[in-house]
Amino acid sequence: MSQDLPSLPRRHLLAGGGAALAATSLAVWGRSAAAAETPVATAKPLPPYAGWKDATGLIVHSSTTVETRRHVFGTSIVTPAEQLYIRNNLPPPDAAILADRDAWVLTVEGVKAPRPLTLRELKGLGLETVAMVLQCSGNGRGYFPSKPSGTPWQVGAAGCVMWSGVPVRWVAEALGGVTEGMKFMTGTGGEVLPAGVDPKTVVVERSVPTAAMADALLAWEMNGAPIPLAHGGPLRLIVPGYTGVNNIKYVKRLAFTAQESDARIMSHGYRMSPPGGKGDPSQPSVQEMSVKSWINGPGTDGKPLKAGAVQVHGVAFGGLHPVAKVEVSLDGGKSWHMARFVGPDLGRYAWRQFVLATRLPVGEFTLASRATDTAGNVQPEVRLENAGGYNNSSWADHAVRVTVA
Amino acid sequence: MSQDLPSLPRRHLLAGGGAALAATSLAVWGRSAAAAETPVATAKPLPPYAGWKDATGLIVHSSTTVETRRHVFGTSIVTPAEQLYIRNNLPPPDAAILADRDAWVLTVEGVKAPRPLTLRELKGLGLETVAMVLQCSGNGRGYFPSKPSGTPWQVGAAGCVMWSGVPVRWVAEALGGVTEGMKFMTGTGGEVLPAGVDPKTVVVERSVPTAAMADALLAWEMNGAPIPLAHGGPLRLIVPGYTGVNNIKYVKRLAFTAQESDARIMSHGYRMSPPGGKGDPSQPSVQEMSVKSWINGPGTDGKPLKAGAVQVHGVAFGGLHPVAKVEVSLDGGKSWHMARFVGPDLGRYAWRQFVLATRLPVGEFTLASRATDTAGNVQPEVRLENAGGYNNSSWADHAVRVTVA
Repeated sequence: MSQDLPSLPRRHLLAGGGAALAATSLAVWGRSAAAAETPVATAKPLPPYAGWKDATGLIVHSSTTVETRRHVFGTSIVTPAEQLYIRNNLPPPDAAILADRDAWVLTVEGVKAPRPLTLRELKGLGLETVAMVLQCSGNGRGYFPSKPSGTPWQVGAAGCVMWSGVPVRWVAEALGGVTEGMKFMTGTGGEVLPAGVDPKTVVVERSVPTAAMADALLAWEMNGAPIPLAHGGPLRLIVPGYTGVNNIKYVKRLAFTAQESDARIMSHGYRMSPPGGKGDPSQPSVQEMSVKSWINGPGTDGKPLKAGAVQVHGVAFGGLHPVAKVEVSLDGGKSWHMARFVGPDLGRYAWRQFVLATRLPVGEFTLASRATDTAGNVQPEVRLENAGGYNNSSWADHAVRVTVA
Repeated sequence: MSQDLPSLPRRHLLAGGGAALAATSLAVWGRSAAAAETPVATAKPLPPYAGWKDATGLIVHSSTTVETRRHVFGTSIVTPAEQLYIRNNLPPPDAAILADRDAWVLTVEGVKAPRPLTLRELKGLGLETVAMVLQCSGNGRGYFPSKPSGTPWQVGAAGCVMWSGVPVRWVAEALGGVTEGMKFMTGTGGEVLPAGVDPKTVVVERSVPTAAMADALLAWEMNGAPIPLAHGGPLRLIVPGYTGVNNIKYVKRLAFTAQESDARIMSHGYRMSPPGGKGDPSQPSVQEMSVKSWINGPGTDGKPLKAGAVQVHGVAFGGLHPVAKVEVSLDGGKSWHMARFVGPDLGRYAWRQFVLATRLPVGEFTLASRATDTAGNVQPEVRLENAGGYNNSSWADHAVRVTVA
């Protein structure tokens, strides 16, 4: 064998700098199936702050929106950081905020003894770890025929991630408890706001019901490493069961409040508006996730499958309720077969991986999956139409066509 | 913020090529606490086939032995691939074996209808996922005062890893079942053997009792991605509860056999030999792991802790039995406190992460942990002396001294 570093095509060095070189190294040494099997002409390079990711497994929509390719989702339940999607509402802060992670300061309000806490202090207050589906509110938007504005995500604005940090309720207790009458937990992101505009129109600030505090974390670690800048490090508010936007990156303020935030991203953004309409505070906010599943393989990489035995696999989750069962259809929803859960159960907020063992003859097949949660909610056939293209859990939209040759 | 790629010191480019550049990118964008907080002068560069790893979190002993730094182990249970140790008994095969992973061929013997199977065929036969502690037989060797030959691993030749593949028992069933009288499951690695020597003296071939087949996998995926070359891709035999060497990389032959392999690595290597002695087949083989735990933080990075509240955390596992409880000592084993398990239980072969909330005043402390498994086995205070420095589970050896300032 050769221990030499492979020679790198010069165009890679020119095209994308360190990011492209890192991705090339990954591909050569077997870190990516996609790299080895289906070279992908990435339309846009990864943004520098995410240059450590596996470019071959991702669709780069923009410098703040990056999606995991469907066939890249593996069967190991936890989504590795290199594959995880990115959705930043604003450009991330400068990486200098990671120079001394423990010095990061969180302001806490709406408690009886409010005071700022450093990340170092937070680490002393408690430790918990949760496995959680992190999913963008607009995941599946790409399947809306109405083409709502926003990133046309397919399945890949989601992942199952391990977070470690201190439970929010312990932080509140350490500061005397939540002040009476506070109905919301409001987190404010630490992004640098553009100059010359009303901060309320751009700040990333979201409110969730205080009930969500029960399982919420102030997290400093993701998947075994300090949270990368792309995912909200040094400190992120984690609200299991709630869509991505509610999990505030670079969280600098945690406030228990009587009212929802009046930031535009809360009052008008992420609302379930009627088709053609605009968001306003009277409409339901996009917060809790609902039961959903999709099939990840095999045959989703665009290459024909070989006829014979296959293991049809995917992921399923229930939002606030654990997922109870998954059915799989090989004929676009005409008939259904009970799938089997595979691997350990990582808890109520994680996704389960499911599999259906079957044999496929030569032909074309539309594979679909339909999950049911423990509360009896069934993943619907039809999406709930809305102007923003949010919360798409339609099993029909998420069906995938594969060719068996 | 700057969206520009940071300028890279030219010596990095010269010293380690793509590997060093990849590592630099990780550090700059916050993929490593070690990078941000304690720049490490790595004595040796990562070998090219592992250039995608996070160099700042690793101790490179040689081109085939790389260890995870103790303070780098996080609290997310699953060890990310970038942090995972490497121990290859031979140099890995050429990366070309990953060019078409599905074409990899496994020979199966000792079954009623033996035939070669491609990885593509294996993928059709079944799917299971297991979370498992992968630990080198010699992990902890560095604590033996006798300084046995071999890598002086401390705690970092171990990780908790997710594997996906097909259960070995299903493969055996598909080939008519195991032939009667076979007592061992023998795996043979696909490394290229050096020329001019008796293959039996160098081949990586290990036998475990057929009982181990119950939970064994032929795995193609690790932590959500196709297994990297450094960890045995495209196909690895996974034997949960058994030390690393029994988990055959690049497995090309799986044989159910009446006798243990007569390869030297089996007959003479990895034996519990008396101090000063040599390995021989009459001695116990290093196979099943036993109950073990250690503390990973805080204060293990060499920097003084701040006095006050701390969360002392670590990992514990039970080998073939799940771990039942962990006690923590702050005074080198004079007194013990019951620790709390944190995060989801990933199954009997995974490690649990534990935590003890306490307050530490200014001073020096020797932190130790002692695990007990469900069979009542208690992690011992004293190592079992042996010539090879194997199976060190001594809690005293694994205690760590921290300074509180």
